[in-house]
Amino acid sequence: MPYRAPVEEFRFIFEEIVGLNEVVSTERFAEATSDVTQAVLAEAGKMCEEVIAPVNRNGDLHPARLENGVVRSSPGFAEAYEAIREGGWVGLAADPAYGGMGLPFSVGTAVNDMMASACMALQLNPLLSQGQIEALENHASDELKALYLPKLNAGIWSGTMNLTEPQAGSDVGALRTKAEPNGDGTYAITGQKIFITWGDSDLHENTVHLVLARLPDGVPGTKGISLFLVPKKLPDAEGNPGVANSLRVVSLEHKMGIHGSPTAVMEFDGATGWLVGEEHGGMKAMFTMMNNARVGVAAQGVAMAEAAYQHALAYAMDRKQGKTPVKGGSGAIVEHADVRRMLATMKAEIFAARAITLACAVAIDMQHATGSADWAARAAFLTPISKAYGTDVGNAVAYEGVQIHGGMGFIEETGAAQYARDARITPIYEGTNGIQAMDLVARKLMDGGEAAFRLLEEVETHAEACRAQFPDLAGAVWAAAESLRETTEWLLGREDLNDRFAGCVPYLRAFARVLGAHYHLKAAQAEGGTGARSRLATFYIKRLLPEHAALLAHVQEGAEGLYAITDADLAA
Amino acid sequence: MPYRAPVEEFRFIFEEIVGLNEVVSTERFAEATSDVTQAVLAEAGKMCEEVIAPVNRNGDLHPARLENGVVRSSPGFAEAYEAIREGGWVGLAADPAYGGMGLPFSVGTAVNDMMASACMALQLNPLLSQGQIEALENHASDELKALYLPKLNAGIWSGTMNLTEPQAGSDVGALRTKAEPNGDGTYAITGQKIFITWGDSDLHENTVHLVLARLPDGVPGTKGISLFLVPKKLPDAEGNPGVANSLRVVSLEHKMGIHGSPTAVMEFDGATGWLVGEEHGGMKAMFTMMNNARVGVAAQGVAMAEAAYQHALAYAMDRKQGKTPVKGGSGAIVEHADVRRMLATMKAEIFAARAITLACAVAIDMQHATGSADWAARAAFLTPISKAYGTDVGNAVAYEGVQIHGGMGFIEETGAAQYARDARITPIYEGTNGIQAMDLVARKLMDGGEAAFRLLEEVETHAEACRAQFPDLAGAVWAAAESLRETTEWLLGREDLNDRFAGCVPYLRAFARVLGAHYHLKAAQAEGGTGARSRLATFYIKRLLPEHAALLAHVQEGAEGLYAITDADLAA
Repeated sequence: MPYRAPVEEFRFIFEEIVGLNEVVSTERFAEATSDVTQAVLAEAGKMCEEVIAPVNRNGDLHPARLENGVVRSSPGFAEAYEAIREGGWVGLAADPAYGGMGLPFSVGTAVNDMMASACMALQLNPLLSQGQIEALENHASDELKALYLPKLNAGIWSGTMNLTEPQAGSDVGALRTKAEPNGDGTYAITGQKIFITWGDSDLHENTVHLVLARLPDGVPGTKGISLFLVPKKLPDAEGNPGVANSLRVVSLEHKMGIHGSPTAVMEFDGATGWLVGEEHGGMKAMFTMMNNARVGVAAQGVAMAEAAYQHALAYAMDRKQGKTPVKGGSGAIVEHADVRRMLATMKAEIFAARAITLACAVAIDMQHATGSADWAARAAFLTPISKAYGTDVGNAVAYEGVQIHGGMGFIEETGAAQYARDARITPIYEGTNGIQAMDLVARKLMDGGEAAFRLLEEVETHAEACRAQFPDLAGAVWAAAESLRETTEWLLGREDLNDRFAGCVPYLRAFARVLGAHYHLKAAQAEGGTGARSRLATFYIKRLLPEHAALLAHVQEGAEGLYAITDADLAA
Repeated sequence: MPYRAPVEEFRFIFEEIVGLNEVVSTERFAEATSDVTQAVLAEAGKMCEEVIAPVNRNGDLHPARLENGVVRSSPGFAEAYEAIREGGWVGLAADPAYGGMGLPFSVGTAVNDMMASACMALQLNPLLSQGQIEALENHASDELKALYLPKLNAGIWSGTMNLTEPQAGSDVGALRTKAEPNGDGTYAITGQKIFITWGDSDLHENTVHLVLARLPDGVPGTKGISLFLVPKKLPDAEGNPGVANSLRVVSLEHKMGIHGSPTAVMEFDGATGWLVGEEHGGMKAMFTMMNNARVGVAAQGVAMAEAAYQHALAYAMDRKQGKTPVKGGSGAIVEHADVRRMLATMKAEIFAARAITLACAVAIDMQHATGSADWAARAAFLTPISKAYGTDVGNAVAYEGVQIHGGMGFIEETGAAQYARDARITPIYEGTNGIQAMDLVARKLMDGGEAAFRLLEEVETHAEACRAQFPDLAGAVWAAAESLRETTEWLLGREDLNDRFAGCVPYLRAFARVLGAHYHLKAAQAEGGTGARSRLATFYIKRLLPEHAALLAHVQEGAEGLYAITDADLAA
């Protein structure tokens, strides 16, 4: 079952739902006209279908290996990566001054979505490079930029993020890696990092690590952390990879999924590094990069869902079991109501999650193009929702993809299980979905709810505007937004942050449900109210949206009853 | 992190929630006194902790292999199985006339729950034998019983179920395997079967297959199917394994989980078989067995949840990250509200699913002990709910178990991922959860809703009775039961079965939510209303039960809006 890139779906969402035209109307992105964007997406889609998707199972069956300290990538990955590199897809949204294409981040997110559907294990490599490119563009010295960015944008060198240590996961501030000034402007980096995605690569001339470490005068916690660029091979006078730096891959992890993506334990033993950004300003630099990386992971979630959905739909259309329950049917299982319910749910969820993710990406583009604080606030607010909802949907849809296959779904040769295993990392990395939800109810409500209320106002205004055309649907969306507003006010009224954290995940899910319903309603409207999108919107709003009420009831229970359950109760 | 058998939890549920005392008050189960049951559970628990759990990871890392046509089981499985065999655990609930222990099925279900937590891949072997024992007890000739049951009960021979064929999965009636009379009272069985759990075994002297096949005069569909007993080795005159029968294992599947359980493609090439039950009565015989096997799978779901929960809780109690959010805390992640929410949800769901499963098992015991049609109807009604909810909970809890471990959860060495992978088969085999839900809203409502309404009456009567003690909780449970009653009436009023099927899964989930709340309320009451169980009941009823309303809203949408979404819409 080959992957089919949903190019038309991106066009529709960009033009009718999330307003890419606003992005194109800015000076910065004036060249990203609809024609250009469509051509870019079509070309990327073709590559994903024809070159990348065919290596996906190779990656699963033949994981990346560590041989004599060097990573050997999965069979076929080199050729598939070469297509990505040659197409200029790594630097798609990067600064043209350093070899990037300068296209909107939102267009890059769509391309990443397709590449991840085709082969997420491989796509992680350019995704990490993109994160590094962005961090360097925003925080590195001109010298570092000039030396590294062209190589990264060209995909000749590859970038990694080195944050986690065994004792410092969600609590980044607990890290112990040290940076000592060498006296010549460089630093000696020493420490161990874990979970380093593509920590080494045989697809590139050089691997460039961004490493969080503490300077001798760095205070404990996050405020004493600085960011360093640490290449595997030190560039020579011509900027080519020279002598080896003092760092190595200790081992690769044996993981549940994304076997083709080498996850390394890295050891830095006085490795030479260069400061990126301010001393002790590492978290700030890292956060710029992480926020956008979170949208990248949201797109991976949507991508896993898309691939799993296509795979399951093809099976359900083809597989015949028993008498057809519909007049004139063929007996294919798609005709059974419960299989159809699963497929409709999957498709409706994918649309909602993709629209939210691309709405967030558009907000990031608007923030970059206009410098507007409102757009920045919207991007910041939508980021944790995109990341958590996109990856929840990725897992839920991949789970149902297995289910639709019945017994065949549990057999690895079928391919459905791989999507479920690969998707499982997405709610964990780049900040677990619990961390996203905590971010949403704490930091992202620190504006007194302004960003939240502005979004809800948009939802309600739109629902009002199309109430005549869709009385039931618009009424339901309006009422749900109103409940969400009330719960948001309730959250804002809590003094004890634990009262917010106790229901942060249900709150995030309810917000995503309401936004999903809003985008579905927009889709129905864009279509004129009588086509496939209207039918899917009706399904989503009538059958899935009602869940918001239960989620909000959960939120308003607060912390008391939760902490009433003692450690001893949990262990009883 | 070693597994700890929840022996006290079984005692509580048996004595305070599901009324095992009623079972013991029957003549048939008079010997299963509380003391006996407790001793049995304690002994089984000890074996699971000390002997079985230690081989669980072996099974994952070293799957069963096919060598020269013979299955080689995972390292350590032989020793662990020997403990099961020696303890008499295979024939725990079987007829003492043939070497069984004659204990209630409900007690056997609790033992199976513990064995599956310890190592589900291995536990599948005795589970399948138990299903076969039951089928033979109820349908085989005295001669077959005398020859096979003592060996099966003693665990010296092992039993399998051969239903599925490539074209006949959920649609069993499409099977093509043939049975030709040999003229000597035996039959020649020819055909291929797939997904045969423990289709061969090196843990046993002999493997006994129950095979569904069609006699020459068998009509197409399920009504023309008969059941045959087909041993791997034909018993000689002394009843010992003699010459090889004409059957073989063609291959073993490469699966997402339960690697230690060999899943075979079986080929029968004129193999000698004996008829079990009536000619063309195979489905009836198989259903007796499958219904109880479904409760067995429900227990596997609960078991996976229990094991995953214990594993995640130990990690959350130990793992320190960041500042504690609670006064005087240690910084362990269990103190974080969102981690605590996950753990409390997991624990509350496990209790609910286990109570429903054991209530179903008790109904089966009462049906067997009394022959009462009411108990039979209750058992039949609770079976699909137990199976689907138990296995949904198994997967949801194992998923959260991975999540609580953060990045470590994705690393196979941690063990959390194995539970998620192993659990994934349980909503699929023994009838997918969609099939369970279809069974619930169609066949199990054919009594005009009598069984459903009798259950709901019990829920409401109990809620009424403890309204003074728990005004909020009892009120919520009562109201939820009332909504469920209304939706049940709505379902009964649908003439088009597709209107029932369109929402069958949400209906089943809502029913489980209400029953779960009911059992939690009973637990709170049994405890006096002030302890750990009351706090957990409050959590479940206030935070999880509200979901029933959204599920019931989904049900009442019916088929129209679902089938309005065309095949072309799904493929768009």
